[in-house]
Amino acid sequence: MYHSNMLSVQKTREIIEKFKITVEKEIIDLKDGNSRVLAQEIIVMIDVPPFNRSAMDGYAVIANDVSTASESNPKYLKVVDEVGAGRISNHHLKSGEAIQIATGAQMPSGADAIIMEEDIKSSEGKIIVVSPVSYNNDVALLGEDLKKDESILSEGQILGPHLLSVIASAGYKEIRVYKKPQIGVIITGNELVEPSIDIKPGMIINSNKYALNGVIEDSWAVSHVEQCQDNREKLMNDVVEAVKKYDAVITTGGTAISKGDLIVGIIEELGEVPVHGVSMKPGKPFGFGIIDKTPVFMLSGYPVAVAVQFDMFVRNFILKLQNIHKTINTITAIAGENVRSSPDKYNVIRADFKENDGVVYPIQTKAGINKSILMSNCYIIAEECVGKIKKGDECRILKYSSLKVC
Amino acid sequence: MYHSNMLSVQKTREIIEKFKITVEKEIIDLKDGNSRVLAQEIIVMIDVPPFNRSAMDGYAVIANDVSTASESNPKYLKVVDEVGAGRISNHHLKSGEAIQIATGAQMPSGADAIIMEEDIKSSEGKIIVVSPVSYNNDVALLGEDLKKDESILSEGQILGPHLLSVIASAGYKEIRVYKKPQIGVIITGNELVEPSIDIKPGMIINSNKYALNGVIEDSWAVSHVEQCQDNREKLMNDVVEAVKKYDAVITTGGTAISKGDLIVGIIEELGEVPVHGVSMKPGKPFGFGIIDKTPVFMLSGYPVAVAVQFDMFVRNFILKLQNIHKTINTITAIAGENVRSSPDKYNVIRADFKENDGVVYPIQTKAGINKSILMSNCYIIAEECVGKIKKGDECRILKYSSLKVC
Repeated sequence: MYHSNMLSVQKTREIIEKFKITVEKEIIDLKDGNSRVLAQEIIVMIDVPPFNRSAMDGYAVIANDVSTASESNPKYLKVVDEVGAGRISNHHLKSGEAIQIATGAQMPSGADAIIMEEDIKSSEGKIIVVSPVSYNNDVALLGEDLKKDESILSEGQILGPHLLSVIASAGYKEIRVYKKPQIGVIITGNELVEPSIDIKPGMIINSNKYALNGVIEDSWAVSHVEQCQDNREKLMNDVVEAVKKYDAVITTGGTAISKGDLIVGIIEELGEVPVHGVSMKPGKPFGFGIIDKTPVFMLSGYPVAVAVQFDMFVRNFILKLQNIHKTINTITAIAGENVRSSPDKYNVIRADFKENDGVVYPIQTKAGINKSILMSNCYIIAEECVGKIKKGDECRILKYSSLKVC
Repeated sequence: MYHSNMLSVQKTREIIEKFKITVEKEIIDLKDGNSRVLAQEIIVMIDVPPFNRSAMDGYAVIANDVSTASESNPKYLKVVDEVGAGRISNHHLKSGEAIQIATGAQMPSGADAIIMEEDIKSSEGKIIVVSPVSYNNDVALLGEDLKKDESILSEGQILGPHLLSVIASAGYKEIRVYKKPQIGVIITGNELVEPSIDIKPGMIINSNKYALNGVIEDSWAVSHVEQCQDNREKLMNDVVEAVKKYDAVITTGGTAISKGDLIVGIIEELGEVPVHGVSMKPGKPFGFGIIDKTPVFMLSGYPVAVAVQFDMFVRNFILKLQNIHKTINTITAIAGENVRSSPDKYNVIRADFKENDGVVYPIQTKAGINKSILMSNCYIIAEECVGKIKKGDECRILKYSSLKVC
């Protein structure tokens, strides 16, 4: 039985953190890079822009021609060409000339400044400049956005849409990223059935399947869920297959009499079980095992306990498999009601945090009440020795939103 | 030309908001419901739990037998059966008896309380109870989690892992959700090429493709990106096809000379263009058109302008297609430096917000500098009439993180 050697949450985290992770990398097309983690440095491969270009719709001119232009001293320039983006003017600009130019188009040779369209008057092939323009005015210079050989992003960077755009500009069509972890989930329980309105006596709907699928997806990993009957041989087979195929395995159930020994017994037979039983509430029967270098997280059957165990021990592990390093970050809030907590345990209590006034209200229900999920947006974390928290006391909370990758 | 009738950002938003959206629904398997939007009410179809069950590992007893138990008045009960989850005991519990029971298992008939395993001593088929136990102690009662016919979630609810779990428990294997919007993206520009280190003169890497793909994905929609040459006939063809196939169409480019008229001209010929030119910086050439009830958002070519136009006008529209209603929510910050802004325009300035001290630093670069993306985490929004913001002044900022769905 696990009661004899229950570990603290702190100690359990240390054991899990000591597990040596092998992160794997792969090369993907840049277009698939959103919400992935960069596994390489990005060194700019070409100057951006690759040439001096116009930053405005307007006219390319020689600054010297118009540096003293004013209302009382207007300058007249002859428009000799027009150039759009992606095109190049063959005309070499000479004094007294201007070339109409589009934003982003390459500067014509000879030109060294742009006059915005709004700032000139034009008439019959000529433009009239009435305000002074200086050298390089509204010219985007070669390399001023990204410089060749400059390092702009490093390994471990979480990628979003605009970073992909910058990486594209730096010349990359493919990038190296961390592989998405493949997580096997073995749900045990003869009593579990698919959702239906026609449930046989003693049976329960398998809701953990849906929750785990979702939290694994939200951890940017791929979940492979299967259900297994409480049969030693079948379960052992499934575990052996799963640890071969996946980067980590999660089991649920097996906290009940006899079943508890079943799962833990199998993992112990196949490998080792450094954690079985944690001094926390809910989620006490949590187990952590290792088979052939594959970690196995043994979660409870009750959805609330499963959620807490996943959030406390599994989520950040899955992120670490992608080289994302997060910790459990609590913030301070004021208890809006008395909070029951056991002074000898690490208590994780679903609660409703009112952001605007900084007050948190515990949702105190029995262990099996899943509806508390609908009513809560955070956990109150009362570590060992905290004991009862009185209304008005400060306490530590962990917002669900802070669990997300980013 | 658009300069003659530029609209304010406010007016532009009103026009876009007036567009009548048809949201579409579909039935999906519950396991695919994460990060989708519920398009039905969830009314509980079966009581949860569907029977009285044990909330603890322990012993099912008759409360009356042990209501006065104490250290000095121990009660002895005979263990007559053992029942795991998913199983039912055939034994009808009588006074003086106990049945060993697993968490989640159905209460044996006759039993009306649970004693936790930790709270008893056991010896040779008997248990010794030394503390009083009351009626329904640690019993999860039929329907106490979810009550049949109770309404627990309504249309428009954004779904996450734990809500899926509750929906499963309520008896649903399939749910009705809003369809993911299909967004067509037509990127124009003869100068645009795929990322490479070997770029021909005058050519530019097509980085908008990657950014738009990502922001559409982050808006929980599906993007269909294609590139089109600046050829009137081809472009018209592509637009006609896209408005037929997709829920909304985005074009980029066409802000440069002659091209501007090309895109807008095509949309005008095929439908109407209520917005062309918005008094904002950057992003002035933004256009909004409608062809056969399909909206067309005409964005600039410059990535920074594209990002701003998308965030100001397109993102929330795509969310609305899924019945997610968000507004642009700014918060107050203190300017850490002077901020240049035009008093006659709606200014959107990339900036770096230091959350801890509430100070925001503008990243003031030329329009074409995309690297500003790497250095910024918010926009400073300076509406018309705000004018110059001095260091130490309050200003309004829009955090990139607040743009996300949830």
